[in-house]
Amino acid sequence: MLTYPLEKRGKTPIYRYLYQCIRDDIIAGNLAKGTKLPSKRELAQNLNVSVITIQNAYEELQIEGYITSVERRGFFVLHDESGIPVIPHQSGITTQDQNKPTEKITKTPLTKDFNAENAVTPIIADLTGKNCLRQDFPYASWARTVRSILKEDPPELLKGPPSKGLPVLRNAIANHLWAYRGIAADPEHIVVGSGAEHLYGLIVTLLGRNLLYATEDPGYQKFCKLLNNHGADVVAVPIDRDGLRCDKLNKVAADVVHLSPAHHFPTGTVMTLGRRRELLNWAHADHTKRWLIEDDYDCELRLRGRPVSTLYALNQGRQVIYMNTFSCTLSPGMRIAYLVLPNELVDIYHELCDYYTCTVPVLEQLTLARFIDEGDFGRHINRSRTAGRHRRTRLLQLIRRSPLIDLASIDEKDAGLHFLLRLHGNFTADDRENLRQASRQKGIAINFLDDYRRPKDRLLHYSNDCPLTIVINYSNLEPDLYEPTITDLTQTIREVATRSPSHQDLVR
Amino acid sequence: MLTYPLEKRGKTPIYRYLYQCIRDDIIAGNLAKGTKLPSKRELAQNLNVSVITIQNAYEELQIEGYITSVERRGFFVLHDESGIPVIPHQSGITTQDQNKPTEKITKTPLTKDFNAENAVTPIIADLTGKNCLRQDFPYASWARTVRSILKEDPPELLKGPPSKGLPVLRNAIANHLWAYRGIAADPEHIVVGSGAEHLYGLIVTLLGRNLLYATEDPGYQKFCKLLNNHGADVVAVPIDRDGLRCDKLNKVAADVVHLSPAHHFPTGTVMTLGRRRELLNWAHADHTKRWLIEDDYDCELRLRGRPVSTLYALNQGRQVIYMNTFSCTLSPGMRIAYLVLPNELVDIYHELCDYYTCTVPVLEQLTLARFIDEGDFGRHINRSRTAGRHRRTRLLQLIRRSPLIDLASIDEKDAGLHFLLRLHGNFTADDRENLRQASRQKGIAINFLDDYRRPKDRLLHYSNDCPLTIVINYSNLEPDLYEPTITDLTQTIREVATRSPSHQDLVR
Repeated sequence: MLTYPLEKRGKTPIYRYLYQCIRDDIIAGNLAKGTKLPSKRELAQNLNVSVITIQNAYEELQIEGYITSVERRGFFVLHDESGIPVIPHQSGITTQDQNKPTEKITKTPLTKDFNAENAVTPIIADLTGKNCLRQDFPYASWARTVRSILKEDPPELLKGPPSKGLPVLRNAIANHLWAYRGIAADPEHIVVGSGAEHLYGLIVTLLGRNLLYATEDPGYQKFCKLLNNHGADVVAVPIDRDGLRCDKLNKVAADVVHLSPAHHFPTGTVMTLGRRRELLNWAHADHTKRWLIEDDYDCELRLRGRPVSTLYALNQGRQVIYMNTFSCTLSPGMRIAYLVLPNELVDIYHELCDYYTCTVPVLEQLTLARFIDEGDFGRHINRSRTAGRHRRTRLLQLIRRSPLIDLASIDEKDAGLHFLLRLHGNFTADDRENLRQASRQKGIAINFLDDYRRPKDRLLHYSNDCPLTIVINYSNLEPDLYEPTITDLTQTIREVATRSPSHQDLVR
Repeated sequence: MLTYPLEKRGKTPIYRYLYQCIRDDIIAGNLAKGTKLPSKRELAQNLNVSVITIQNAYEELQIEGYITSVERRGFFVLHDESGIPVIPHQSGITTQDQNKPTEKITKTPLTKDFNAENAVTPIIADLTGKNCLRQDFPYASWARTVRSILKEDPPELLKGPPSKGLPVLRNAIANHLWAYRGIAADPEHIVVGSGAEHLYGLIVTLLGRNLLYATEDPGYQKFCKLLNNHGADVVAVPIDRDGLRCDKLNKVAADVVHLSPAHHFPTGTVMTLGRRRELLNWAHADHTKRWLIEDDYDCELRLRGRPVSTLYALNQGRQVIYMNTFSCTLSPGMRIAYLVLPNELVDIYHELCDYYTCTVPVLEQLTLARFIDEGDFGRHINRSRTAGRHRRTRLLQLIRRSPLIDLASIDEKDAGLHFLLRLHGNFTADDRENLRQASRQKGIAINFLDDYRRPKDRLLHYSNDCPLTIVINYSNLEPDLYEPTITDLTQTIREVATRSPSHQDLVR
C-alpha cells in the first residue's frame, strides 16, 4: 500500500502533497504504467485522512494525465516511459477548442453522480445552465457602482447588516417588484439572504419542520434534499400541461406547496389561471397552516407571451411566500435572493429571527441597491431579454435545419432560457446513462427531465408514452458553440441508438 | 380608530405612508397634543397590516419628535401648536455631541428587549461591541484589492462558488491557521460560509438535530436561540475560573459542547490546559457521537499572555469542529466565517451538502484570499493588536483614576477587547433594569453579564456573592468618548443607587 510521510509536507495541503508524491513516483518509474492504485477508501484508511482528500489527489493526477480511472475497476497509472503524460483522447467539440486554456473541472451537482469517472474531459458546452454568459453580465456598470460605493466609504460597511437586509436594498427590491411583477410589497416584509438555498432553511424555521412539504414532480430536486437536511419531509406531486395537479395534491396530507408557477422548472410550463385559483382554494381551506412558496426564479427573463400574475398578488400575500433571486438575472456568484413574507410570517420572523445578522455582505447590498435605483438593473434586464430572444431564435433555427430534428422534437414553452428535446423512439435507462456519458466524453454536459424527478420514481418514466427528454438550458452556451454542439449531440444520440437494438430505425 | 386609505399610497412603503398620514394629521391639528394613539396591535388589526409595520411608522414619528411613548401607557401626540416638534430632553453625553448628525437608531438585539421605549436617544457609546472602529479597518488596502480583482475580471465572478468555498480562499485560510494558530488544516476540511450564525445551522445538519447540545453559562446566548430555531435542544453548563465545569457536564446527557476556550465570551476566561484535557476525555469516552465546537472568534486579537493551544490541535481534529470568523478581525459587514471539520464530518458533508452553493459571494472570497495571501491581513492584525493594547491601557487607567473605581472593581482577563466591571453592593434585578435604562437615556448602551445567561436562570444570580457585572466591550468606543462615558456611567450608577434604599453607602 502507498504510504507517504504526511508530517513532511510542511504547509502544503495533504491532497496536494499526496498528488506530488504519487506524481514523483510515477515519473521516477517507481509506479509503472498499468499499476493499479489502491482504492480511495483503502488509501484514506491507510493514511488516516478523509476519502475526499484522496479523491482530490487522484483527480489532480487524472486531470494531468498521470492516472486514469476505469469503471468498476479502479485507478491505473497511465504515464508513458517517455516522460510525456498520455493525454486522454478528446474528440469532436473538444478538439476544436484545444487552444482554450484547460480549466480544472468544476463538477455540477446534478451531473456529478453520473460523471465522476469522466472528470478528464473539460466541459465545453454546459447545457445544465448554472452560470451566466460573460457578455450578459453588466460588468462595467457593476464595477463602477462598487467603486463609487467604496470611494464614499459609508459607515454601514463596518457594521453587521440588519436581520432582513439593509432598508435601502429592501426599498429598491420593493420598487423593482412593483415595476416588474405588479407586486405591492412593504419593504418590511422583504427578507434578503445569501441565495435561495439559504432562504429555504429560513422558511423551515418560520413554518416549522413538523409540516409536510410538497413540490412539483418533475421539479427542483434540490428543494427535497435541502428540506430533508433541515429535518422536514417532502412529497412530490405530479404536474401536467396546466401545472401542479391539485387533484393529486388533495390526496396527500401536505401543508406547504413549493412551486414555480410562472415558469415551471425545468419544463417551462406556465400554470394556468384556473389551476392557480384551484391551488389558492386549497390553501384557503385551512388558512391556519397551509402555505404556498412561489419560486419566481427567472420571471424577469420571460422571452415570450404576457407576464403572468403571481400567486402572491392573486392572494394579496396572505398565504403565499414569494421568492426570487438575482442568480439568473445577474450572476450566481453574487449570492443574493429574497423572500416577501405574508403578514403573519413577518410577525413570526420578528419573534424568532430578529437577532440574526443578514447573510449578505454590506458592500453587495449597497451596490445592488444603487444598481437597481439608478436603472442599471432595468437596462440590463432589457438587454438580456433581447439577447435571449436572439439566441433562442438562432439555436432553434439551427436545430430545425439540422439532422437532430429527425431524432427529437422540440418542446418550447412560453418562458425562460431553456427548452426540452424529446427523443423519438424507445430509450431505456441504460441508454440514457450511455447518452449522458457519451455526451460528457465530448465535453457536453446534459441533464434529462428524469433527473428532476425523485430518484425512486425515475424508472417509471421509461415507456413509449413518456419519451426520453433532454433539458437544454442555453444560458451558458456561447453562440459560436451552437453548431458544433448540435453536431456532436446528434452524433452521440445516433451512436447510442446504434448500440441499442431497439433503435435501428433512428440510424441513417 | 385611525384609518387611512392604504390603496392610495402608490409605491410608498406602508409604514412610510402611515407615518406621513399621521404626521400630516398632527401638523394639521386633527390629532391634538396629548392625544393617545391606538396601540400598535390595534392599529395593525384595523388596517390589516403587520405589527412591525405600525411599529416602524411609530418609530419614525418618535424619532422626529411628533409622538412619544410612555411606559405601560402607550403612544401620545407630542407636537406643539407652534409647529415645531418637541425634541425630547437629552442630557449628559448626548448634549456635548449635539453637533453630530443624528442617525436613525439601529437597535442591537440584546438591548432591544429592554430599550424599545428608549428609541429616542441615539446611542453614542455602544459598549455592547457589535461593530468595528472605522480607523481599525484596513480600508485602503481592502478597497485596492477589490478594485484590482474587478479589473482582472476573473471568470469565477460569474459562477456560483463551490459548496465549501473557492479553493484559493480555503488555501489562504489554511495558511493563516498554520501561521497564527498552529493548526495544520487540510483546505479540503475547511468550509466557508456567510457568518457564524449560518454555519451553526450547517453544523446541526451535519451532526443531526436529535443530539443534545450544551453551551457555556454565561455564554453566547445566540447559540441557544439559533439551535432552537434549527430544531435542536441546548442545555447550559456553568463555567468557573478554569472554564467549563466538566463535573456538571457529566451530569447532563449532552452529546455536543459549544465553547470558546481561548477567550470565553463574555467573561474573557481562558480555559486551563487541565480542563481542556478533561473535556477531551469526556469527548473520547464516546467517539461515535460526542463532538466539541471550538469557537475561536477573536483569537487573533489576543492582547496579553501566550497564545493557547486549540482543542482542535490537542485532539488532532478528530472530534473537534473548529470555528472562526472575520467579523472581529475585519468587519461584521463582511459576513465571512469558516469551519474546519474533522475527517468523519468531511465525509458526511460531502454526502449531504456537496450540492450546496457557498453562501459567500465570489468577489468577497477572491478579495479576502488575496488580502490574506499578500500579507495585508497579517499586517492589519498586528496594527489592531497594538491599537487594542493602547486603548485598553488608556481606558483602564482612566477608570482607575476616576470615581468609578470606588463603585466597582475591574475584572480583566488575559485576552480580547472587553473586560468586566463588577459593581460593589447589593443590586436587585430592578436596579439592573433601571441602570440599563438610565444609561441608555444618556446614549450609553451596556450589557450585563446576566444578559449572557439563559433567561430562566437570570434571577438566581442576584445575591451578595454574585455582584451585578457590566460587560465593557470597548472595540466600538471612540477614544475621545472614554472620559465622558466614564463620567456619565459613574453618575448613572450613583443615581440608581440613590433611588435604591440598600445602596446609600455608595452615594457620596
